[in-house]
Amino acid sequence: MQNLTDGQLQEIAEARAARATTRRPTCDGLEALLFEPIPVLDRGFVRVVDYMGDDAAIVQGARVSYGRGTRAVQSDRGLIRYLMRHRHTTPFELAELKLHVRAPIFVTRQWFRHRTASINEYSARYSVLEREFYVPAPQDVAAQSASNRQGRGAPMSEADAARVVEMLRDDAARCYDNYLWMLNEAEDGTPADPDRAGVARELARITLPVGIYTQFYWKVNLWNLLRFLSLRADPHAQAEIRAYADAILGVVQAWVPDVHDAYADYVANAASLSGQAMALVRAALATPGRLDPAGYGLSGRELRELVELMPELADRLPPAP
Amino acid sequence: MQNLTDGQLQEIAEARAARATTRRPTCDGLEALLFEPIPVLDRGFVRVVDYMGDDAAIVQGARVSYGRGTRAVQSDRGLIRYLMRHRHTTPFELAELKLHVRAPIFVTRQWFRHRTASINEYSARYSVLEREFYVPAPQDVAAQSASNRQGRGAPMSEADAARVVEMLRDDAARCYDNYLWMLNEAEDGTPADPDRAGVARELARITLPVGIYTQFYWKVNLWNLLRFLSLRADPHAQAEIRAYADAILGVVQAWVPDVHDAYADYVANAASLSGQAMALVRAALATPGRLDPAGYGLSGRELRELVELMPELADRLPPAP
Amino acid sequence: MQNLTDGQLQEIAEARAARATTRRPTCDGLEALLFEPIPVLDRGFVRVVDYMGDDAAIVQGARVSYGRGTRAVQSDRGLIRYLMRHRHTTPFELAELKLHVRAPIFVTRQWFRHRTASINEYSARYSVLEREFYVPAPQDVAAQSASNRQGRGAPMSEADAARVVEMLRDDAARCYDNYLWMLNEAEDGTPADPDRAGVARELARITLPVGIYTQFYWKVNLWNLLRFLSLRADPHAQAEIRAYADAILGVVQAWVPDVHDAYADYVANAASLSGQAMALVRAALATPGRLDPAGYGLSGRELRELVELMPELADRLPPAP
Amino acid sequence: MQNLTDGQLQEIAEARAARATTRRPTCDGLEALLFEPIPVLDRGFVRVVDYMGDDAAIVQGARVSYGRGTRAVQSDRGLIRYLMRHRHTTPFELAELKLHVRAPIFVTRQWFRHRTASINEYSARYSVLEREFYVPAPQDVAAQSASNRQGRGAPMSEADAARVVEMLRDDAARCYDNYLWMLNEAEDGTPADPDRAGVARELARITLPVGIYTQFYWKVNLWNLLRFLSLRADPHAQAEIRAYADAILGVVQAWVPDVHDAYADYVANAASLSGQAMALVRAALATPGRLDPAGYGLSGRELRELVELMPELADRLPPAP
Repeated sequence: MQNLTDGQLQEIAEARAARATTRRPTCDGLEALLFEPIPVLDRGFVRVVDYMGDDAAIVQGARVSYGRGTRAVQSDRGLIRYLMRHRHTTPFELAELKLHVRAPIFVTRQWFRHRTASINEYSARYSVLEREFYVPAPQDVAAQSASNRQGRGAPMSEADAARVVEMLRDDAARCYDNYLWMLNEAEDGTPADPDRAGVARELARITLPVGIYTQFYWKVNLWNLLRFLSLRADPHAQAEIRAYADAILGVVQAWVPDVHDAYADYVANAASLSGQAMALVRAALATPGRLDPAGYGLSGRELRELVELMPELADRLPPAP
Repeated sequence: MQNLTDGQLQEIAEARAARATTRRPTCDGLEALLFEPIPVLDRGFVRVVDYMGDDAAIVQGARVSYGRGTRAVQSDRGLIRYLMRHRHTTPFELAELKLHVRAPIFVTRQWFRHRTASINEYSARYSVLEREFYVPAPQDVAAQSASNRQGRGAPMSEADAARVVEMLRDDAARCYDNYLWMLNEAEDGTPADPDRAGVARELARITLPVGIYTQFYWKVNLWNLLRFLSLRADPHAQAEIRAYADAILGVVQAWVPDVHDAYADYVANAASLSGQAMALVRAALATPGRLDPAGYGLSGRELRELVELMPELADRLPPAP
Repeated sequence: MQNLTDGQLQEIAEARAARATTRRPTCDGLEALLFEPIPVLDRGFVRVVDYMGDDAAIVQGARVSYGRGTRAVQSDRGLIRYLMRHRHTTPFELAELKLHVRAPIFVTRQWFRHRTASINEYSARYSVLEREFYVPAPQDVAAQSASNRQGRGAPMSEADAARVVEMLRDDAARCYDNYLWMLNEAEDGTPADPDRAGVARELARITLPVGIYTQFYWKVNLWNLLRFLSLRADPHAQAEIRAYADAILGVVQAWVPDVHDAYADYVANAASLSGQAMALVRAALATPGRLDPAGYGLSGRELRELVELMPELADRLPPAP
Repeated sequence: MQNLTDGQLQEIAEARAARATTRRPTCDGLEALLFEPIPVLDRGFVRVVDYMGDDAAIVQGARVSYGRGTRAVQSDRGLIRYLMRHRHTTPFELAELKLHVRAPIFVTRQWFRHRTASINEYSARYSVLEREFYVPAPQDVAAQSASNRQGRGAPMSEADAARVVEMLRDDAARCYDNYLWMLNEAEDGTPADPDRAGVARELARITLPVGIYTQFYWKVNLWNLLRFLSLRADPHAQAEIRAYADAILGVVQAWVPDVHDAYADYVANAASLSGQAMALVRAALATPGRLDPAGYGLSGRELRELVELMPELADRLPPAP
């Protein structure tokens, strides 16, 4: 369904079949996933290609220990939670993940802004890109948000959504046809039209929309991966990259369950309250009844954000202007 | 000619007109260039927006000195050359440059692979992209190189080049028209068609070709800038990003002339000879006459590369197979 | 008072006296501080050596604008607060600070763990280190904390503190004397004892305690500087590096006052509440009276930390075990 | 001999005894070394704690391939050599090594200047440092170099060397005794003298010389590791850190032999010739007999360095001044 060729499926099957013995820590949850493409969007995927470390490796590093680091599962879990709560980030850098990803170019442009990772991308100077474009499902075609300049609002009408999907599909098809014409390359690499030179690949590709799929290897340590997830598995992230982040979050859960839970509790589901917000909340705890937010120094927007976090405050505050 | 609006030109003129007094080192060569767009490609530019340090600042840092660091211009220049020759890189990190760049997306995709820099890019989730696409001049439309899978070969025939240019222009125009239709936004941001919701900007843009121009601020230290230039002002780089690198090389020359010259001598115009190549060259120096390359361990490709570097060896070696 | 030589003071005075005209943004608050050593600890200092950007430069970068970026001071300040609140970190990378620091080696060992900065340190392989050691004031000599394995507890008795200070001073003096003996170098670099070779500097220095002062140039962007301050101007940091962080915090306030205030409100004085803590606080807001913390999943330690943040909760919870 | 306790040796033995099955690529050469301390200096060591990838993983990443990447060993090796020769660095980032190291503080101060690695160091704020100091063997005690301000010259006389060794040993012993006195801690952590409070660990340690051993976990990708080795396994590096680099070079050879050889040929044993040096060498190849270096723009020092690289030029050039 992710449009892999028989040859690619074969290569993956062979890689999955191989087994070796190692002295290194292994993680059963991740071994089960290894090499298997996890579908994302209409034609994308994420595959775990390699990993280093597990929950115990974080503990081992934090303790600079001689052995495998595990004393007791209970105390390991406690230490991991302590490290996460107090943002002792360096032990989390001691685990590493390597992924093979197929994603649209506009998604990779957001992805590669994360600088502390290693990337090897398929080269459109060297190779011909495949005819694979991201086209959203009609129900995912949404209008510009009125309240958030940088986001989606309501879904569009069925008719409008269908028209948008068709438009995206047509543009992609026509541009790709022109790309192939410029390349003048048959499947086997020989000129399609022997009387014409093919345009250089690096030049022909400039007509391709940013919705086209590309591929890359991505290697990142666990801390920087969590940082990526905290930004990209977030409601403010564009839905398309969020789909990748959600898939990777599942990988993290299979790989390092204690770290995953600590991350969920202390980062993903945690809230940061400004000095001003803390003062207001403490006042609300100290005395019952109405609160006068004036004098606390929160802007109208901050007040609204605070009430979203703690709806219990809504009745205690004057109605938002 | 770089398609700036009157408002933009006015803002630039005002920024250029302002003057202030500072205790910091200043660089006359760069002050003259400040804020002025340097044209690159058909509609791109590079503008120096700010800088920190000069040749003397490199020396000052290398000496961890209390004063401005300059003892004598002559010895400063010698120290800079010494540092560059021996790759003492940290003092070169003590100077910093900030640029405002307009470049096609496919160029920024190569650019942003350089991870040790700070980037703020114009957001196509938040704002509407301008109708500005890179289209090569007909004489720059080249065929795929036969010898180098990752490069351009001979220019194409005039007719074919014209057809390619037209094709690129058409694809861009049609995709951009569709982008605007999807956005359904008039110039002033109101709906063009009041009966229809506009598609979210972040979604509509996925139909735009990678040849469209974007803009970004780029801040980088001098060492990482030189590293960028060594890869991107190189004949192996794609011509379009090389045009930017060449423009920036001119900025570096105006800014830190001693560093520029040392870079040219010890990096850009220098050659790295492998252990095997060194042995062969030394043998050629030791004894006149024919050389038998067998036994030195250079591959055929390496031998050809060596003869390109040192054509004087051509007659001393057997003809390439 | 920071034990600078007359020559050093002279170099600083000359640097401060120089003036030039620039088109770049300048910051009066920082110009006033430029080059002047700010005393830290008994013999250390921090000196601002150069800077790039100001509050407006953050805004200019965030908007990828053509002009100086300032529309209205009020809206600039609001944007900076918005960026900080939502951790849009990249615009803060567009300002840069360069410092000259004299600090004890054990302080630099903590300092240099911050990897995203440029450092040039005085070389003890190349040069002779000065006879400058950190010795705490007697009132700063504290006992090991009983509750915090990684911190100080109560001050020691006057007699014990005096003995510790004397011990540190003696060790430093004796080791430095032996260092000089091994170097066998007179002030002018000639052998002190002509009949003996001096030990290599890189080897002789291994006898010097980590309390000895070293010097370095440190260049860092504003975001990474704030990150440094959030860890090192924190009560959990060792008092000695905190003294440097506090001095630098003053520099930040003079340089980018809007960023400084936003950092104070949204980072330094903000609190992060875990998902569990949020649930408990919301329950406390929803209903008056006693709370049963069981079922919320906070550890005893987390409950204590929460009550420290919000003492109003103390009476609502069972007494800590 | 590396002064490991029985408990530590036991932990290492248990870690080595464990075996698991994995789908990941394994490397027999490195499996054999895993966890075993490799002695360095008098009391230091390097232990491989984990690894990711092998020679084939570099190739797999460079090809962004679906399977294990290996087509034929021969072509893999050729691709690795090509990538190294042309400094295509990103595929080399796809392999990762994790080490446990015991080294003197003055060595770690050089080591940690390499910023692109993950470090977890034993904390002297949290724990008590062991009585382990580096003391050079008498034959390694060398005089300051006369020609190289930053290096060692001839070995010292036996008597002087003995005196230096004794001095280093005495300083270390006395400072460590005072450290223990300040801590006032018995082996079991109770106060040695119950009538006196122990000084905080973070403060007492400032009297310890930089020759004391510390420990850390170090995780780094293969490219940054090679960069580390190119600087630290170099004759210009201080002998003590070179000893560590040499040990790690052996690890690299066991782990990724093809990469190791390519690194040796194209980096470690390669030479960089400046534009000027290239012109001179080409002139020497073009015509026999004496060369007049004037006009080529090489400094006296550069000429000497060139003759060191290519002694065959010595007779063709005028004697060095």
